Amino acid sequence: MANETVFTYGAPQLKFGPGAADEIGYDLARLGARRALVVTDPGVAATGAPQRVADAMKAYDVTATVFDGVQVEPTDESLRRAVAYARDTGPYDAFVAVGGGSSIDTAKAVDLLTTNEGDLADYLNPPVGAGRAPARPLLPLVAVPTTTGTGAESTTVCVLDVLELKVKTGISHPALRPALAVVDPDLTVSQPAEVTASSGMDIVCHALESYTARPYDAFERKAPERRVPYCGANPISDMWSERALALVARSLRAAVRDGGDRRARGDMALAATFAGLGFGNAGVHVPHANAYPIAGRVRGFRPSGYPGDGPLVPHGMAVSLTAPEAFRFTFEACPERHVRAAELLAPGMERPDDPSEHLPRALLALMRDIGVPDGVGAVGYTEADVPDLVAGTMKQQRLLAIAPRQVTEDDVAGIFVRSLRLW
Amino acid sequence: MANETVFTYGAPQLKFGPGAADEIGYDLARLGARRALVVTDPGVAATGAPQRVADAMKAYDVTATVFDGVQVEPTDESLRRAVAYARDTGPYDAFVAVGGGSSIDTAKAVDLLTTNEGDLADYLNPPVGAGRAPARPLLPLVAVPTTTGTGAESTTVCVLDVLELKVKTGISHPALRPALAVVDPDLTVSQPAEVTASSGMDIVCHALESYTARPYDAFERKAPERRVPYCGANPISDMWSERALALVARSLRAAVRDGGDRRARGDMALAATFAGLGFGNAGVHVPHANAYPIAGRVRGFRPSGYPGDGPLVPHGMAVSLTAPEAFRFTFEACPERHVRAAELLAPGMERPDDPSEHLPRALLALMRDIGVPDGVGAVGYTEADVPDLVAGTMKQQRLLAIAPRQVTEDDVAGIFVRSLRLW
Repeated sequence: MANETVFTYGAPQLKFGPGAADEIGYDLARLGARRALVVTDPGVAATGAPQRVADAMKAYDVTATVFDGVQVEPTDESLRRAVAYARDTGPYDAFVAVGGGSSIDTAKAVDLLTTNEGDLADYLNPPVGAGRAPARPLLPLVAVPTTTGTGAESTTVCVLDVLELKVKTGISHPALRPALAVVDPDLTVSQPAEVTASSGMDIVCHALESYTARPYDAFERKAPERRVPYCGANPISDMWSERALALVARSLRAAVRDGGDRRARGDMALAATFAGLGFGNAGVHVPHANAYPIAGRVRGFRPSGYPGDGPLVPHGMAVSLTAPEAFRFTFEACPERHVRAAELLAPGMERPDDPSEHLPRALLALMRDIGVPDGVGAVGYTEADVPDLVAGTMKQQRLLAIAPRQVTEDDVAGIFVRSLRLW
Repeated sequence: MANETVFTYGAPQLKFGPGAADEIGYDLARLGARRALVVTDPGVAATGAPQRVADAMKAYDVTATVFDGVQVEPTDESLRRAVAYARDTGPYDAFVAVGGGSSIDTAKAVDLLTTNEGDLADYLNPPVGAGRAPARPLLPLVAVPTTTGTGAESTTVCVLDVLELKVKTGISHPALRPALAVVDPDLTVSQPAEVTASSGMDIVCHALESYTARPYDAFERKAPERRVPYCGANPISDMWSERALALVARSLRAAVRDGGDRRARGDMALAATFAGLGFGNAGVHVPHANAYPIAGRVRGFRPSGYPGDGPLVPHGMAVSLTAPEAFRFTFEACPERHVRAAELLAPGMERPDDPSEHLPRALLALMRDIGVPDGVGAVGYTEADVPDLVAGTMKQQRLLAIAPRQVTEDDVAGIFVRSLRLW
């Protein structure tokens, strides 16, 4: 096989810093927009931030309508409702997502389906959908993350549950990447400690998974039309990942301990952005693949700090619960990267005799300190659930293909069993 | 004064690696283009690369015309000729610049003036021109750098000489930033050693100047419409600069010694890209400001390795000649950054007792090793020229404003005098 020689790197333009969210009207006007739809969820809407962002646009002659009907963990139904709202109240010439990954992903779908023909199902990744590429350019999308974690402002994907099929899938196309990310740490100050912890672990895993992903030049050479947005570890994603880990090491514990610590909030907002810019190109693998069934098959678990009252394993929590075991499993594929990542994540930690223990121990120490539940068992799963969890993971072949070594069902089962309790 | 709290970061999408230049037709087609103008200079055209790039587009149903009339160090006249050619032979729906900074900057001007009304002079930076902003969107510009140095693929500026006024100025607007940079190290293999050395010093100075630039939050808070593309040192430009310096430390000497060393060529292509992504947002200061009059007032100097037969101080050489003294001057503004930069640039070097000597010595050792001339005197200037050189530097207030300390005429005069001979 001829090895890949080329990697690609895409990113939104970025505006970062306290107060940045007040200027969006200017940026929209520069993009030629006059009438924007602000897309958010009821929880974020209740903080008042989306309306403030919308009001601030008036100074630049941009009028905005706020749609606060985003569903946390979007479904095909919730996306269709958002698209219908935009069609009924539009036309708009730009979209502004204020919120977490759910709001940003919903805005991506609204943008796609108000600018291009066809139904949602046409664009879903195969085999669920037809994997159609948009024929026309999308409108500018400005992403304003209020959760320091998801990285959705940097990615080209929209993740959703298809209710009838009980499957999590997505739409993936470079045109879905926001034109501009406006990251304002002031918007994250109200985030409860539990949300900071979970979304912080999402950042950690974005950085660790893209850093240990199969390198781009270990894949087979692709024709340009066969390139995928997630191209594997490369010199640029490595840099973002390393810097994100250093910021997390300095500030995640502090941000969880004291949400008003502005330096820590600033660091975490930057870490989330950096990790997003890394994994938005390299990709993520085993912990994220495992998170799909952990979140999707939840029964009674309910974390504090989150709005609503249904069962929920937050995304970042779901990702982190199998991470220590996943990185024990991937260690042999690139030992030096696992050790380097551990050094960045836990700069003062004593080096274990067995280097494969270094990263798992650094992760476990962090997870205990910030109050992550003690394993997959602590969010309600037992050994009897493992076959179903494994089946859910194995459906995420798009992610497993990025892992640095081949992943079998038995490998995944072992990871789940050993992750039932972590300490 | 209220301090700035916000920084901005913009970059082209990137495709990097050997063979990347063969795929441009695909990328153009994806951007909706069917008819492209390839913009290059006669020297690069003679290597055959622009025609190969144009021919490869046919596989994706994109037809291309090659314009090889770019002038190295563009002037208002040469830009007008290029624009006229594009108007006469167009319309085009995309532009592809293959070459160094001159080709990329020329393509920026062609794009601007074939999509927007008005004359070149309307868009030049004040006070030379009217500083008009483009009213309409530009067409996609793909930049394919063949010189590992300029970073023009990442910047929002087009630099030119206005012949009648004998002044170097530019056009500066975010819309000028290329949509896509295609960096193919194979295109740089034919670059002569002298060009590799000079453009390598340009990379070094991009990285060092943006790393030591006045930090974004040391400026006064700006309204969004008053933000400039060069916002000062920030956490993102710092990261690019540090990584560029580490790559230069590993590979610049090797790339000069043996142009066929593919690892070194790959590293330098990456270093040029990284430094461009850094300074394209943070900005550059004293060495670049000094380079304007050093290059502009050249009399008899003629380096080997460059095409043509007129007098020339290549840009990277001009930038580097005062760099050791410039960083002696800026040291006191941020000592730890100067020391860190020296450590990255010369990892094995003994630390001098006086830390302000660290970076100048690292630079001087590198410059001697790769054959940079021994100071401003070695390219034809004497002490009698210093007042004129100083006057030329002081015109570059846009750059001097980015310096980490205030720069007076006397400061600049001292830097020039002490740079007449370097070792």
